[in-house]
Amino acid sequence: MSKIYVTGLGPGAADQMTIRAQKVLERCPVIIGYTVYIDLIRDEFPDKTYLSTPMRKEADRCRMAFAEAEKGQDVAMVCSGDAGIYGMAGLICEIGRDYPEIGIEIVPGITAASGGAAVLGAPLMHDFAVISLSDLLTPWEKIERRLDAAAAADFVICLYNPSSRKRADYLERACEIVLKHKKSDTVCGIVRNIGREGESCEILSLEQLREKKVDMFTTVFIGNSATMELNGRMVTPRGYRDV
Amino acid sequence: MSKIYVTGLGPGAADQMTIRAQKVLERCPVIIGYTVYIDLIRDEFPDKTYLSTPMRKEADRCRMAFAEAEKGQDVAMVCSGDAGIYGMAGLICEIGRDYPEIGIEIVPGITAASGGAAVLGAPLMHDFAVISLSDLLTPWEKIERRLDAAAAADFVICLYNPSSRKRADYLERACEIVLKHKKSDTVCGIVRNIGREGESCEILSLEQLREKKVDMFTTVFIGNSATMELNGRMVTPRGYRDV
Repeated sequence: MSKIYVTGLGPGAADQMTIRAQKVLERCPVIIGYTVYIDLIRDEFPDKTYLSTPMRKEADRCRMAFAEAEKGQDVAMVCSGDAGIYGMAGLICEIGRDYPEIGIEIVPGITAASGGAAVLGAPLMHDFAVISLSDLLTPWEKIERRLDAAAAADFVICLYNPSSRKRADYLERACEIVLKHKKSDTVCGIVRNIGREGESCEILSLEQLREKKVDMFTTVFIGNSATMELNGRMVTPRGYRDV
Repeated sequence: MSKIYVTGLGPGAADQMTIRAQKVLERCPVIIGYTVYIDLIRDEFPDKTYLSTPMRKEADRCRMAFAEAEKGQDVAMVCSGDAGIYGMAGLICEIGRDYPEIGIEIVPGITAASGGAAVLGAPLMHDFAVISLSDLLTPWEKIERRLDAAAAADFVICLYNPSSRKRADYLERACEIVLKHKKSDTVCGIVRNIGREGESCEILSLEQLREKKVDMFTTVFIGNSATMELNGRMVTPRGYRDV
């Protein structure tokens, strides 16, 4: 039985993928993914059939994977970050109902929450909520409700997709909701291009974050009430009493 | 300047670490960690100085790392999962204030949320909250408040440390709070020994989860209102309209 391996490449650079993901790419003759991600691995795995579809054609890309697997070959479906967090794993499982003879294996990768936290210091030492600000597939009211709930319960909050051309003021709107519950000097952090050329980060207050312009390659972290800035790092204490 | 690399090994098996983590372990002459994690890597990296302290002596272990680094050698401080999620990264940053001449680099790993989700299918395709049920360092009231908020706002919820000998009924108590907001047939999943020998998983309803006895090697996933069971997998739809 041939198999589709839904594989997270981690954030950007090739050495951020797991050894397991590397072995999967070595084994599969066909690699399918959005062009940007394929370009990250093409040099390292040259003798492969690479297939792609444009962005937003995720369902087509999944059906392409099943069509290739039906020919009897193993397929790696690649995404950046973790295929299982806002990635392609779900859609592959859903479409997989139409292809019961094809196996599915999910190979996890480092998601932006983990990768970005490591760049900033240690913001995720305590309970956290991951929220996407993209309202392409989710009503904005639902996103607002989640921001409000997470802020009120003092979660550290990690925001994916904080901005895009059409959604330039979404981060500002999110910060305004969070500011109802969290202090304006709450320690926040932003990381851009995690694990890629031009990686950069900045620590700032929630007040400053509200005014900040970010792009779609940015991941945003909003601290909890105990999060501190320590020597240029964003750190949420875990609470070990014997420090 | 010598450096401490706080390194997440991922869940269990050695091929779940990133290539970057592997390179760090190859480079560092000293590896420090809780005994169980050291045993996972000792065979692969034999020519190292391995140091350890008992569990719950986390601060001592961090100071041991700085003491070794002060001798002029690079140190890898290893944890399972992601060092940046309920891991040692925060404590290293905090104690690092006393050692300004030692560099600190955080090397992320696959956390149990990612690793467990991949075993179950695709439960984390939408906004999610990660909550630890350990009240060793957090008041139980705060944990309850977060469970309540996350359930009310329809987050997928991932529970770390769902049980221990002293906290046998904590998962039951958590489910009772979640049941105030989520339906009793909400699709849930548990994964035990992620990436290790004896890995197993089970999909069950929230009602059944409440009665379930789990151990400290288990990670728990509680779906949102749209989470489904599909061919034995736990899948939260992302909402792509063109499936």
